[in-house]
Amino acid sequence: MTSVNRPRGVYSPVVTPFTKDLLPDHDRYVRHCRWLIEQDVGLAVFGTNSEANSLAVSEKMKLLETLVGADIPVDRLMPGTGCSALTDTVELTRHALSLGVNNVLTLPPFFYKGVTDDGLFRSYAQIIERVGSDALRIYLYHIPPVSQVPLSLALIERLLAAFPGVIAGVKDSSGDWSNTQAMLERFQPHGFDVFAGNENFLLATMRAGGVGCITATGNVNPAAIVQLYRHWQSTDADARQAALDATRAVFAKFPMIPALKAAIGVYSNDSDWGVVRPPLVDLTPVQCDALATALREIGFSMPGVEVPA
Amino acid sequence: MTSVNRPRGVYSPVVTPFTKDLLPDHDRYVRHCRWLIEQDVGLAVFGTNSEANSLAVSEKMKLLETLVGADIPVDRLMPGTGCSALTDTVELTRHALSLGVNNVLTLPPFFYKGVTDDGLFRSYAQIIERVGSDALRIYLYHIPPVSQVPLSLALIERLLAAFPGVIAGVKDSSGDWSNTQAMLERFQPHGFDVFAGNENFLLATMRAGGVGCITATGNVNPAAIVQLYRHWQSTDADARQAALDATRAVFAKFPMIPALKAAIGVYSNDSDWGVVRPPLVDLTPVQCDALATALREIGFSMPGVEVPA
Repeated sequence: MTSVNRPRGVYSPVVTPFTKDLLPDHDRYVRHCRWLIEQDVGLAVFGTNSEANSLAVSEKMKLLETLVGADIPVDRLMPGTGCSALTDTVELTRHALSLGVNNVLTLPPFFYKGVTDDGLFRSYAQIIERVGSDALRIYLYHIPPVSQVPLSLALIERLLAAFPGVIAGVKDSSGDWSNTQAMLERFQPHGFDVFAGNENFLLATMRAGGVGCITATGNVNPAAIVQLYRHWQSTDADARQAALDATRAVFAKFPMIPALKAAIGVYSNDSDWGVVRPPLVDLTPVQCDALATALREIGFSMPGVEVPA
Repeated sequence: MTSVNRPRGVYSPVVTPFTKDLLPDHDRYVRHCRWLIEQDVGLAVFGTNSEANSLAVSEKMKLLETLVGADIPVDRLMPGTGCSALTDTVELTRHALSLGVNNVLTLPPFFYKGVTDDGLFRSYAQIIERVGSDALRIYLYHIPPVSQVPLSLALIERLLAAFPGVIAGVKDSSGDWSNTQAMLERFQPHGFDVFAGNENFLLATMRAGGVGCITATGNVNPAAIVQLYRHWQSTDADARQAALDATRAVFAKFPMIPALKAAIGVYSNDSDWGVVRPPLVDLTPVQCDALATALREIGFSMPGVEVPA
């Protein structure tokens, strides 16, 4: 099942820049994505930190078309395609494949709570059958703190058995290491690639046989995270992990998505970057200053972030 | 603020029939909606029990166009328009207004959890400003057990102050009578119409000054619920309420949405009615038989439900 072309390493749920009028800003988006690619970070566009579920299907399709049209390599993209509605998920997944983007990160339908494994199995099965492409590789997106719809180990086992070529891996954003560990032990040996849900678990995940992490702070601290991924077997790996944790802790003092965008705004001298869609709220100027001060204090930098013309 | 044309009485989140291929079945839909209107039940299409968030925006728009095209009175419609994405909510709300449907029932954006009142206020404010119509009447949809995004009393107060002509009422599906009571006391006197979230609270809501209920079981037991609404001041009101509760309790022994559809299937001799979209699961034949038996035992009937030609 595994091949050299399978996604691994560090991916980031790319934050989606908006104009002041709350519309997706394609120019800033392409610049940010190119910078991430230069840092060797893959693009998990349309993730939780991308405000993906605050975007219409058509808005996501246009953004993906823009990236592919801007020569972002299709094998470095892993768009989120999981929506609340089956028909939306099928449309987004088909659209990604039509652009040559085969790896997708797919939330379960997240409106109903307490749904059964039978219902979730049926949901992924319908997506796979309706898309009907051997090229499709689905990465399951397990993020119960937000989706409130967990993907159980029993469900994953059943999906892997039914669709062994298509169910390709997971992003585990449970925040529960014992769950990540169980996935690594039970499924990684069968070609099911486990990504940690953030860099706090990157070293532990690599040591346990995983393939990397997909992390919000990849948007702002990509180089250091990639360095740990590359050198996880080196003697200074624990120190590198501690440094990553310290940087992430600064962002975690603020609402994460507005803070990521505000930081990009600060380091690119472009405060409009801080705009988020409701129900999120931009950082206040006071919060933004506090973030900037805290980042200066730890010597944080974003080398190469482009200031828009 | 109040007028004789404001919605009141019994509404039902109309269940959405699907073909075996899981596509919306417009013929069955129109038949069921006409039957509900004959029973004097208003149509809260695209509610939780309608599997609304399992439908794409375009599917909902086509269904609403079908109903209006079938001469369903626009003032008896209260479509759900609240989606996870701001742009989707705006599109659905504008579309409803374009068809002459002015009353909408609007969920807050439900993907992110733990969002602030500021963020939710901003969300409804953006919807109202972008739709930009004096005709718009928004009924807030408070259903924390499913959405996991509650609408606080403080938020409602703020919305009412900012948009007194537009924020028209609420469906309270919290299941928490003390919350309904607080809404009735604080907001109903200011022309903010409180609907109970199901018929279990209908009598209590009417006695406390509310305007009716919006209830899933209105799909199957409309006549008796309407009778209690009409006669809530009569001496037998408590007995009527007890009878409604007993009927609802039978449905509540099963997963509600599949059970409602299965019951319509049983009483219209059309078992294909039972189809639900994932992540929900159809009742099994055994469950369906158990439901039919339990309904027979309480003498349940659905007079006038049409068997399709």
